[in-house]
Amino acid sequence: MNRHTGSLAIRKPYLLLVGDQSEPVFAKTAFGLRDWCGEDCVGQIRFADGAVDLGLPDYTPADAARSGAQTVVIGVAVPGGGLSAEWQEVLLALLEAGFDIASGLHDALEDNPALVLRARALGRRLHDVRRFAGPLKVGTGRRRTGRRLLTVGTDCAVGKKYTALAVARWLQDAGHPATFRATGQTGILIAGEGIAVDAVKADFVSGAAEALSPDAALGHWDVVEGQGSLFHPSFAAVTLGLVHGSQPDLMVLCHEAGRTVIAGLPDYRLPDWESAIAGYTDAARLTNPGARVAAISLNCGRLPAEARAAAVAGAEAATGLPVFDPMASAPDSAAVRALVGACAALD
Amino acid sequence: MNRHTGSLAIRKPYLLLVGDQSEPVFAKTAFGLRDWCGEDCVGQIRFADGAVDLGLPDYTPADAARSGAQTVVIGVAVPGGGLSAEWQEVLLALLEAGFDIASGLHDALEDNPALVLRARALGRRLHDVRRFAGPLKVGTGRRRTGRRLLTVGTDCAVGKKYTALAVARWLQDAGHPATFRATGQTGILIAGEGIAVDAVKADFVSGAAEALSPDAALGHWDVVEGQGSLFHPSFAAVTLGLVHGSQPDLMVLCHEAGRTVIAGLPDYRLPDWESAIAGYTDAARLTNPGARVAAISLNCGRLPAEARAAAVAGAEAATGLPVFDPMASAPDSAAVRALVGACAALD
Repeated sequence: MNRHTGSLAIRKPYLLLVGDQSEPVFAKTAFGLRDWCGEDCVGQIRFADGAVDLGLPDYTPADAARSGAQTVVIGVAVPGGGLSAEWQEVLLALLEAGFDIASGLHDALEDNPALVLRARALGRRLHDVRRFAGPLKVGTGRRRTGRRLLTVGTDCAVGKKYTALAVARWLQDAGHPATFRATGQTGILIAGEGIAVDAVKADFVSGAAEALSPDAALGHWDVVEGQGSLFHPSFAAVTLGLVHGSQPDLMVLCHEAGRTVIAGLPDYRLPDWESAIAGYTDAARLTNPGARVAAISLNCGRLPAEARAAAVAGAEAATGLPVFDPMASAPDSAAVRALVGACAALD
Repeated sequence: MNRHTGSLAIRKPYLLLVGDQSEPVFAKTAFGLRDWCGEDCVGQIRFADGAVDLGLPDYTPADAARSGAQTVVIGVAVPGGGLSAEWQEVLLALLEAGFDIASGLHDALEDNPALVLRARALGRRLHDVRRFAGPLKVGTGRRRTGRRLLTVGTDCAVGKKYTALAVARWLQDAGHPATFRATGQTGILIAGEGIAVDAVKADFVSGAAEALSPDAALGHWDVVEGQGSLFHPSFAAVTLGLVHGSQPDLMVLCHEAGRTVIAGLPDYRLPDWESAIAGYTDAARLTNPGARVAAISLNCGRLPAEARAAAVAGAEAATGLPVFDPMASAPDSAAVRALVGACAALD
């Protein structure tokens, strides 16, 4: 039981269940785990040769116990979002084989009576990482000790999780105590704990964010994974609650270079740099008057390679802030050093 | 089944269950129903002489069937928030007597197996008005037909529900088709339907608000009950999602005269008029570029009677907007006529 959040930590190491999923885009969780906590991923279970290959040792449900894993993670989206009879049989066998099971599927493991009964009888745990089981309180707005950095975005799916993971690692590598705080399913599986803030009741979003980054030691940084966007007509509520509850000292504004409208909503133009920075700064200053945007994370993955340096330089000129590409910038790049320095200056 | 929201309408008329609650402040729901849909409230059930008296005809569980009510409404907060054995017996008897039961208690009727089984056997309905049973979608930001007015606030509990009810009535009395749209428990019981937006999963707040005020005829006004405040560190997420999903053409900013800090959070000063108006206008323009604050609802209930006119005049001078006291201003006052006129000008 995590003393801060009341959430049950998910036991590592993991065995990643890929099943027969052949589309990498539907195996994002599995790839995220491999990339960000590869040392905790001891193998994969694939039902078919055509399934996504993570490059990890292969196991079958029958020999999985040899992997040394503690928890089997459903690392893919299953067709239809629900559990087929075939998947249920596999999961029951994995419970028998000694594993806990963790899932970010929409259909909760806890809503499957056969799995619940078997897990209970065997003393195994089922983790539905989208669903926070602990008690939540409404936010209080009380200032907490320690420092917080929150990634925020011009839109969804621009690299907020990736950026938070990278910043946490850069801080740690530079000798600053830092903890990645997960707010979505993949992040929770990587961290082994967290709260899916978009799935809590709306009254409790800021309270959940407060619980997620509690009082900490002087000089410690919680690096909180952002969600949604203040400029997204569907999800801004989640974002604002997370901003208020996280009470960030610093924010990193994430954007995908070349994107001009909200993904899937072509009538909604993305904000310009000035509006985005002002919007997040105003929102964050409600609970932390010193809050500011300290850097830009510019995801250049969709630009041609030869256009990326100019995109970064353009964003730097427009904002006056350090700009890094989270997928490409080296820890010793000027922009990353500037961000780490901004954190250090607040210690 | 409401065609818009998927919610089951609550059958009227109501019998208000007061029980042994002797503190009027814990009978706010019952008073709100009596005041705003008194024609639908045919009686009260009190367990003791010392219980709150709404001035309605008294019934006992044994003779309640004579009242002609369809639904018994739990109109009070019960001690501890849960149902005692005594209350459960009364509710079972009322189901037997032919009533549906509606409740805004934190402990849901639907979580009480004895009530669920009895209601099912008898064909009665249990309404937990804090819990929305229908399917919800995430918001889309699509512009809808018809007009919308949303009440917004500098804080919680400043008169947003009361103001929305009053505005809907003023519009109707002036010949404009208007529908009060409820977003909280008392409002839902008054309207007989609605969605408690603070209790839906955070991802669905704006989608819930969209469902609540669907496409409507030209010239029709949905008057949406506001929740929380953009300036409240606990609840701003709910407010922002409601603003975005309601896509209001006009807003009425509600404030309690004399209040200077967020209730219960003395470290949080309320915004000045300019900041409050700008904050709501900026937020609303994401989904409705024409959105504006059209009037101020200044709840002067805590001021000495002789100070009220000056407070209203001061707010008018500071904002340049029509200012009315929702508890006191007559429908033919200049401010109310100005607001109704602003609506009419958009028809």
